[in-house]
Amino acid sequence: MGGDHGPEVVAPAAAIALERRPDTRFLLFGDEKLIAPIMAKLPKLAAKATVIHCDVAVKMTDKPSQALRQGRRVSSMWRAIEAVKRGEADCAISAGNTGALMAMAKVCLHMLPLIERPALAAMWPTMRGESIVLDVGASIGADAQHLVDLAVMGAAMARIVFDIESPTVGLLNVGVEEIKGLEEVKAAGRTLRETTWPHLSYHGFVEGDDLGKGTVDVFVTEGFTGNIALKTAEGTAKQIASYIRDAMGATLASRLGYLLARTAFQALRRKLDPGRVNGGVFLGLDGVVIKSHGGADAESYAGAIEVGYDMVRQNLLANIRDMIGHASEARAPTLTPS
Amino acid sequence: MGGDHGPEVVAPAAAIALERRPDTRFLLFGDEKLIAPIMAKLPKLAAKATVIHCDVAVKMTDKPSQALRQGRRVSSMWRAIEAVKRGEADCAISAGNTGALMAMAKVCLHMLPLIERPALAAMWPTMRGESIVLDVGASIGADAQHLVDLAVMGAAMARIVFDIESPTVGLLNVGVEEIKGLEEVKAAGRTLRETTWPHLSYHGFVEGDDLGKGTVDVFVTEGFTGNIALKTAEGTAKQIASYIRDAMGATLASRLGYLLARTAFQALRRKLDPGRVNGGVFLGLDGVVIKSHGGADAESYAGAIEVGYDMVRQNLLANIRDMIGHASEARAPTLTPS
Repeated sequence: MGGDHGPEVVAPAAAIALERRPDTRFLLFGDEKLIAPIMAKLPKLAAKATVIHCDVAVKMTDKPSQALRQGRRVSSMWRAIEAVKRGEADCAISAGNTGALMAMAKVCLHMLPLIERPALAAMWPTMRGESIVLDVGASIGADAQHLVDLAVMGAAMARIVFDIESPTVGLLNVGVEEIKGLEEVKAAGRTLRETTWPHLSYHGFVEGDDLGKGTVDVFVTEGFTGNIALKTAEGTAKQIASYIRDAMGATLASRLGYLLARTAFQALRRKLDPGRVNGGVFLGLDGVVIKSHGGADAESYAGAIEVGYDMVRQNLLANIRDMIGHASEARAPTLTPS
Repeated sequence: MGGDHGPEVVAPAAAIALERRPDTRFLLFGDEKLIAPIMAKLPKLAAKATVIHCDVAVKMTDKPSQALRQGRRVSSMWRAIEAVKRGEADCAISAGNTGALMAMAKVCLHMLPLIERPALAAMWPTMRGESIVLDVGASIGADAQHLVDLAVMGAAMARIVFDIESPTVGLLNVGVEEIKGLEEVKAAGRTLRETTWPHLSYHGFVEGDDLGKGTVDVFVTEGFTGNIALKTAEGTAKQIASYIRDAMGATLASRLGYLLARTAFQALRRKLDPGRVNGGVFLGLDGVVIKSHGGADAESYAGAIEVGYDMVRQNLLANIRDMIGHASEARAPTLTPS
């Protein structure tokens, strides 16, 4: 029911994902009256999907506390997450209210052992391809241990997404020598450097401009800075796209040039499309929950479904558990097995 | 002596600035042997400039503590700042080591009354024109009072730069409803909202994508996040410029199109040029110190000189003092006059 378009995008997206991942089955939670007419036009999907009617839908404008009060046990969002909890579904995907989704997932699924706070990992297009950036806003502030947890969870996800044995991980920091960043970032850097990791290759500190370069596979930062960096990059891309439009419409010659080069511009537009890499992954939860962009179209939402599929098929949670088990040796003494 | 090019850029830059601001005089601190042959080719500048020989130059790679140890009282950087302290110069401009410049300025000039930490303010190109963003990395972490100080100092600078009576100020925050940002950001927001400011119009919270839109005249954030946001935006602009180059070279048609539209592309390149808006301003110091990009060319460095000129001519320090005096009413009781 979530996102800007609700079932009109979600059901066709499921149909697209089903073509590419034919062994998928779907549970669609929401208003049956709205979903049924769309499903009538998608017979292949209908054969692999069950619609579960829910009276309540979390609104995009609900506060998380409100959503939990009014939507717990009854809303389509809650029941989709609950299906994961009960083992009826392998993962939950939503284009709905991010804060509500995180709050409900945390309450319903709980955290993985030793992980205290959830994180939202985003795919970031870079000059080299793509990188993972986390946390982009699931929680605010981070001590050194949380930053190490982010590194570990991000590496586990990168191993799946990029299919590499030992993804490179960098800690976002500032370059001004004398201040050299926050104490907790320095402490996390020491732990990451001094621990031998099975599937994580610690690169060191990275700066904001390394994001676009794709210097590492996984960029780690706390949620406040990560969220602002993500939105700053999105805003900059939009700003430049508007400069390009203005510049190309300015003179007859530039308009002609634009026509000649329009295939190139279309390729460029695809590269700049914020929906191109869709599917934020909530990490740290005992279950797989994927957040699609609210404004995603069917093709883009299908991408988020496929991210969820891959995370499940390739055992994201088991990967994270392994890494965390290993990481527990590097933890504060009170947390290590006695 | 600083920056990637030293006097070969600084002296011609001074010559350019002198043409536009004919009442400027220059003190050039550095290695006389390097400066003299360049000055010989710039007679108009030579007539308005004094070269003061310094044996020591701070290196770009020096740590601030190192620079202070080796360069105090003797380096060209220190002596340029000291000239401001002594009233021999109205402002100091350097393309050198940022951390060293800040450390030396702080030690030599001291802070303005009631301001505890310096800030570095950058000009940020936006869809509306330009905005001021601070702090982009002079100090790390900020309590509510420091964020309010940043707002006040940024507004004082914006009044000069944009020539408006009451610049709009926004606090960078994250949009996820349930977490709604750091406690100190919320507390600073309350103080800014509840105080009546003579020359500051508090807008409220803004997000990362508001930077590109230019939603407010002054964006306030602490130095860690500000530095990462600035470099993220610079990195994104470079990334997109490389996409454009690739796309335009891809086919014969796109290359022809590029040729036809090349004036438009040149205009675009100018808009994306990171040196276009040069001249970071250190705020909070009892003196005007301007940081030019290390890679600036003469034209761009001249821009930094002109920023310094305007700050002095329009009484930046007096403006900040006025605002801070007013702001002291909104301070913690221990700081208000009894």
